[in-house]
Formats: sequence, C-alpha cells, structure tokens
Amino acid sequence: MGRVTARRRVLRIRDGVSSYRPDTLAVEEPMEIRVGGRPLTVTMRTPGHDFDLAAGFLVSEGVVHSADDVTAIRYCAGATADGGNTYNVVDVLLAPGVAAPDASLERNFYTTSSCGLCGKASLDAVRTSAAWTVAEDPVRVGPDVVTALPDRLREAQKVFDSTGGLHAAGLFTADGELLCLREDVGRHNAVDKVIGHALREGMLPLRGTVLMVSGRASFELVQKALMAGIPMLSAVSAPSSLAVDLAEESGLTLIGFLRGTSMNVYTGAERLEAVPVA
Amino acid sequence: MGRVTARRRVLRIRDGVSSYRPDTLAVEEPMEIRVGGRPLTVTMRTPGHDFDLAAGFLVSEGVVHSADDVTAIRYCAGATADGGNTYNVVDVLLAPGVAAPDASLERNFYTTSSCGLCGKASLDAVRTSAAWTVAEDPVRVGPDVVTALPDRLREAQKVFDSTGGLHAAGLFTADGELLCLREDVGRHNAVDKVIGHALREGMLPLRGTVLMVSGRASFELVQKALMAGIPMLSAVSAPSSLAVDLAEESGLTLIGFLRGTSMNVYTGAERLEAVPVA
Repeated sequence: MGRVTARRRVLRIRDGVSSYRPDTLAVEEPMEIRVGGRPLTVTMRTPGHDFDLAAGFLVSEGVVHSADDVTAIRYCAGATADGGNTYNVVDVLLAPGVAAPDASLERNFYTTSSCGLCGKASLDAVRTSAAWTVAEDPVRVGPDVVTALPDRLREAQKVFDSTGGLHAAGLFTADGELLCLREDVGRHNAVDKVIGHALREGMLPLRGTVLMVSGRASFELVQKALMAGIPMLSAVSAPSSLAVDLAEESGLTLIGFLRGTSMNVYTGAERLEAVPVA
Repeated sequence: MGRVTARRRVLRIRDGVSSYRPDTLAVEEPMEIRVGGRPLTVTMRTPGHDFDLAAGFLVSEGVVHSADDVTAIRYCAGATADGGNTYNVVDVLLAPGVAAPDASLERNFYTTSSCGLCGKASLDAVRTSAAWTVAEDPVRVGPDVVTALPDRLREAQKVFDSTGGLHAAGLFTADGELLCLREDVGRHNAVDKVIGHALREGMLPLRGTVLMVSGRASFELVQKALMAGIPMLSAVSAPSSLAVDLAEESGLTLIGFLRGTSMNVYTGAERLEAVPVA
C-alpha cells in the first residue's frame, strides 16, 4: 500500500558548504480509475484516500451525484504483469441505472482538459452537467471566519510540515468548522478527495460550505466546487480570469489572496457578512 | 488574440475594512492542439507563445525532435460555430515521414497522465521514447550560478509582479545566462513553451543547459526535461518521490528548495562544481 511520504538521501548545500542528510518527500504515483472494469483515466497522485479520489473524480465529471450511485469501490488485483496488486488501480462499480461515462475519444478529450473547446463552450458545459446550482445558496460567512481558514488548514496539515510538497483542500462549515481535509501532490486531486469523501458520506450537495485550497484558484477548481454544490471557494493565491468568469456566471463566491487579515473577493461578495466599505 | 492579463473589479477586505478596486488577473483559456487537422488534446493555458506551447507539447510526447519535423504551425480559422478564429485552436503540420501521434484511446490515456499504469512502467516508457539521453552530459555548474537562478527568473518575470498568478520556466546556460523565459497559469505549459521555443530555434537536444521552474518538480516536469535533452532541473519548491526516481534512473541532476544560498541536490550531484562537504 502506498505511503504519503518517502525518504531520500539528499546533498544539502548552504552558503557553499554541503552535507548529506535524509530528506522527506511527498510520494507521487499514478492511479488508474476504472468504471465497471473499464479504464477511464490516470492521475498522478499521492497515495491515500484513493477511493475518495476516484469517487470525487466521478462527481467532478458529472457521473455520480449521491452515495447511492456507487455500489462498490475497490483496488484491482492482477493489474500488473505478474498479477500483483499495486494499489494503483481503483475500480468503481456504479449502481444499476447510473450511466457510465462515455469513454469515447471525444469524451476523453473533455475529461483531459476539464473544459470545452473555448471558454464559452466550457462554461455552458459545466452549467448543464451540474445536478444542482449554488446561486441560490443563502449562506453568509463572517470575514473573520474566512481569514481564519488558512491557519486552520495549515494546522490540520501534518504532512505538509515534513515535505513542503503537498497541496491541501479543506471543507469548512460557515462557522469555520473543518469537515474534511485532504492532501495531494496535485491540487485538483486534493479537491477531488474532499468531494469524494463528501459523496460517500451522503453530504452532496454541499450547501452552506466553504472550500479552502492552499494554492491558486483555477477554472478547474471552480468547476469542481460547482459540481459538488459548494457555494464558496477560498484560495491562498490568485484566481485565473476564467475561474472568476465561471464563478460570476454560476453565482459562486470566489475569494483569493487570503492572507493574514486580508482577502480579495472576486465574485459573490453578498455572502460576506457586512463590512464597512472605505 | 488572447492577452496575458485581464482586469477585474474586486472587493478588497483588510482588517475588516473593504473597498472596491481594480485587480489584474492571469488569463486562463483553453487551447486545442491539432496535428494535421486532427484534434489531439486541450490544455488550459495563458495565451501567448501558443506555437511554442504546441511544439513543446509534441516534443514532450515524443512526436517531434527537431525543427525539421515541423512544416508549419498556425491558428485554425473556422474553429467556432460562427466560423470565427478564437486563437485557441492551433494546428501543427508535420513534415513528410514524421509519424503523427496515435490518437487511439490507449494513446490518449498515456497522453493524459504523462505516465504509464505504474511507476515502473512509466519510467520504462519515457526512457524508450526519448531521442537522446542526458546521463553522459558532461556539463558542470557552479553552486553560485544555481543559487542566482531564482532571482534571475523573477527579474525576468514582468507579468508575475502584476498578477501573482503565473508560473515561470527559464532555460539557462551553465554560466547562468538566460536563454528563454516563458510563463503560464500551468507549470507544465510554461515548460512546454520553453522547450517548444528551443525546438523551433533548432536548439534540441538542450545539452549543457539548466531548466529553472518557479514551483515544484513533479514527475511530469522531469520527463519533459528528459525529452528535450536538458541535463539539470532546478525548482524553487519540493520534488516528488517519482520525480527523484526518474531523475536518478535517467542521470538528470535534480535540485529542489532552491532558496537564498541554499539548495537540496537530490540526484546527479557530480554536476555541481566541488563544494566542501561538512
């Protein structure tokens, strides 16, 4: 079974003086996701919470919407040439009546990019495929709750301290209570793991919650939040233009540059409890 | 034509006081890469140096190895429903005799993940598909040259100052001279843009060079460096376990946590000019 960190010998050079020492690295390994035995995609991920990752990926792709849509998730034996189990191949068995994802070339095309041919097409695509909307979510969050999220995320990130190489995603209530934390070498995987956990716990749609991510806010992360019904996304760093556009069109509250007592609210500022405007 | 940055109105909250102000964001837009008119993949990228990106992607995938392998690169007109040109679809025309990438499901599978089914398989795959090896590259680099790279990269990153949202990749000589700088919302795209530029300028394989990236060093970035014949990869942040494994097996020098006068040399330390070992 994969581990989250690995030890390697490293030559540390500081001020021209060097010494060999052990170093702790974040583990990165490929994981293949299969649906009903049929290969769907491969993602480079940090081992751990693999079933959450598989489930969350299928939520993001619009394949499943509730725990009932999934009958079983398991590691595939016999995935290697010698018949061994690498714990790097996960098979998801869908419930009767749930349509398997279209694994045609065109479908793969869209899966790969997580977007369409152009910004407009992709914005349309995500809106039509989401099972719920976030625009009407009445949740209100205090700015002090929001500014406390990065520290709460970091406190909960025990692995981060040892490797410096993992991205984190945390799901919080409107009061700032941590519901779920997941880490990964890939930012998108960390979010998929959080969403997959929520799906498996019967929590979708995630109304009234805030998703906090340790890095930037890309189009893809906004899209994942929407597919899970999350009305607020907060990022430590910058959002992209397309992330803001999609958030605006979908009624999602998007916050970036969340550092110290400061933040930028790009869209959906009505969900921030009143603060004086200078 | 796409732009690198976009302006948006943002609600800035600091210490409980808020004000509306303009903010500059990194532009993120999808770009479809076609080969001979046939769709191959879509990547979310920052517009600019799109032909470099397309060319570099094809180097990373082992499709092209020299400028002669490419006859032409152009934007596709008529890519939208109304027949317009979004400048988001790029077609690469290969030279006669150059095999087009296999766009079958299996091929897409590998393209998507940039790796194989498990670490072992993927390491084998990249070794066999690279047109050259870096293990024998005799280049030597002074530690002082390496520690100066992050500042040189940042100095050259004019866009970064305004958005905080772009990753950078810089190609340097062994003396620390900047050969090429490219930026993108996607780390992998920034590297593909650098490599594509080098291909188009007839510089492959990039013997004796150092590739510097602003973020982490993943398996995929090591793989891209190898496909371009780059013998040294330096990253500001941490490498993953699989990145170190691939670098070790391939004879690439991998440096991480390059900050101030300090760095971690994970593999290929023989290319660092002698420093006293404490």
